[in-house]
Amino acid sequence: MTHPPLALTLGDPAGIGPEISLKAWRSLRHGPVCFVAMGHARPWLETAQSLGLPCPEFVTDAQEALRVFPHALPVFDLPETSSTPANAVASVEAAVKSALKDEVSGIVTNPISKVRLYQEGFSFPGHTEFIAHLTSDIQMEGPRGPVMMLSGGGLRTALVTTHTPLKSAIKALSSGSVVQTTRVTAYALRRDFGFNAPRLALAGLNPHAGENGALGHEEIDILAPALRTLAAEGLEILGPLSPDTMFHKEARAQYDAAICLYHDQGLIPVKTLDFHGGVNITLGLPIVRTSPDHGVAFDIAGQGVARADSLIAALRLAHDIATHRRERR
Amino acid sequence: MTHPPLALTLGDPAGIGPEISLKAWRSLRHGPVCFVAMGHARPWLETAQSLGLPCPEFVTDAQEALRVFPHALPVFDLPETSSTPANAVASVEAAVKSALKDEVSGIVTNPISKVRLYQEGFSFPGHTEFIAHLTSDIQMEGPRGPVMMLSGGGLRTALVTTHTPLKSAIKALSSGSVVQTTRVTAYALRRDFGFNAPRLALAGLNPHAGENGALGHEEIDILAPALRTLAAEGLEILGPLSPDTMFHKEARAQYDAAICLYHDQGLIPVKTLDFHGGVNITLGLPIVRTSPDHGVAFDIAGQGVARADSLIAALRLAHDIATHRRERR
Repeated sequence: MTHPPLALTLGDPAGIGPEISLKAWRSLRHGPVCFVAMGHARPWLETAQSLGLPCPEFVTDAQEALRVFPHALPVFDLPETSSTPANAVASVEAAVKSALKDEVSGIVTNPISKVRLYQEGFSFPGHTEFIAHLTSDIQMEGPRGPVMMLSGGGLRTALVTTHTPLKSAIKALSSGSVVQTTRVTAYALRRDFGFNAPRLALAGLNPHAGENGALGHEEIDILAPALRTLAAEGLEILGPLSPDTMFHKEARAQYDAAICLYHDQGLIPVKTLDFHGGVNITLGLPIVRTSPDHGVAFDIAGQGVARADSLIAALRLAHDIATHRRERR
Repeated sequence: MTHPPLALTLGDPAGIGPEISLKAWRSLRHGPVCFVAMGHARPWLETAQSLGLPCPEFVTDAQEALRVFPHALPVFDLPETSSTPANAVASVEAAVKSALKDEVSGIVTNPISKVRLYQEGFSFPGHTEFIAHLTSDIQMEGPRGPVMMLSGGGLRTALVTTHTPLKSAIKALSSGSVVQTTRVTAYALRRDFGFNAPRLALAGLNPHAGENGALGHEEIDILAPALRTLAAEGLEILGPLSPDTMFHKEARAQYDAAICLYHDQGLIPVKTLDFHGGVNITLGLPIVRTSPDHGVAFDIAGQGVARADSLIAALRLAHDIATHRRERR
């Protein structure tokens, strides 16, 4: 049986989404990674024209998308409304629905402008939480997330807190959240990434991981109990490690994923190492979901200069994860 | 006139200090960077023997050190006491004294164990603050630090807060401390690094630098006023930048130093890029001071496997800074 394609969402069409979608199609059209664009078609049609690429073709089901993909970007057209955020949200909803029906093998989201969504009353911090909400009633195997993972430069980091002001992230940190993030990550490393015995590392919060309490107490009060709980469950995890010395080449060779406590602790090393090729993966969902790890880049949109590296890596990784999940069935 | 040598301190002799000192001497003995080891001689003598290197030679002044350096590590011997922390502290005090008398052109400190120092009642967070204290009464040109800078992998980061628990570092953050760190850094880039028109970048505190207040307010309440003050003084500085996207290759090419708000924000990118060759520099002192950016590494001490890359880079950089300062006189 041929695998269903991935669904690629619209994102904010005023950003670089349509451009990188078509560039990714150009790179990947000869297989094996196949995807269908979901959303109102105009941005993709206009961008294909300006880039001198074949005109995207309308499709109505996944099999058709697989046939079309080698010669044109397949588009599953949705009605256009007057609101950009509403179009972006409708695209994500349609993609999630298709994934839940197994019509697509996973979803890859183009970047959205959070500020524009918030202005329209969107009440989720971002894609990750929105997709978790859309799938919260669906039965699933394994511990439930969402957990945000970044992958790039030979490094995977999973976040205990995500888009939260740093001060609030520290306040929100608990043994329970560290344990749950680690459980979801360990499960995903097995199911989605094919590691039979995943190796994990936990970052400290403070300089030098608190130096035995001299530079902060969260390692003793919050992280140590979490490590004990995880050990009792049979999950071995290194740490808490000094955050500044755990991401260089020899250090990161010792684990398959690092559990990081706040956004920039996990994102700085990945994006410093691999700015263009980093991928954002949502772990602990009933569906496969990845995205490029950059934003809408309004400043360079429409110029033809945007790089599709991160989107291509996100599509490849979603394909790999879907393949791993399928093989386990 | 020949330049005086640098002074290299003892650090904790149970760590890798003596070994990397001798390995650095072996690498640098043919010039132009010359240094004299300051502290009781036994650890260096024993380590030279175990490494099969020429026996270090006692010297009593800088000129003698310059003559000895090509064939043996020169040691300025200090009396040994029974306490390791006391020996380490005495070595730093002697080195600072020599630097203030211009007998040495700067000091490079071997790593100490902070925990061991604290146990003996040492009341400074680390070398940086201790050396600042020892030189606080000395008149100097330019704004006074200390400011801790890390350099490595083509990146320089200067820290507004250093060895402070993360929660306290956020509380301690003020427009005044950002302004003063930036002033000291800008001055040092001119005087010590030879940049005529230094380019600076300021990191945000929160994910995406707060996204216009949606993800935190410190950028608006603390960083924006600091930037206005600096602009009024004629100091142009980019930012606040999203911390996760400011350290990759193309981003860091746009500035000569990044002002970072907390320890790991500045250290994670440098050490991820260049774990072995990173250097710690103290800016805003009347004397030149650098150090390797790693610790005592008790776990590998005495095995002959320690890498001297960071110490060698620290010695070279101290030499360069001393040369820049001399040329400005």
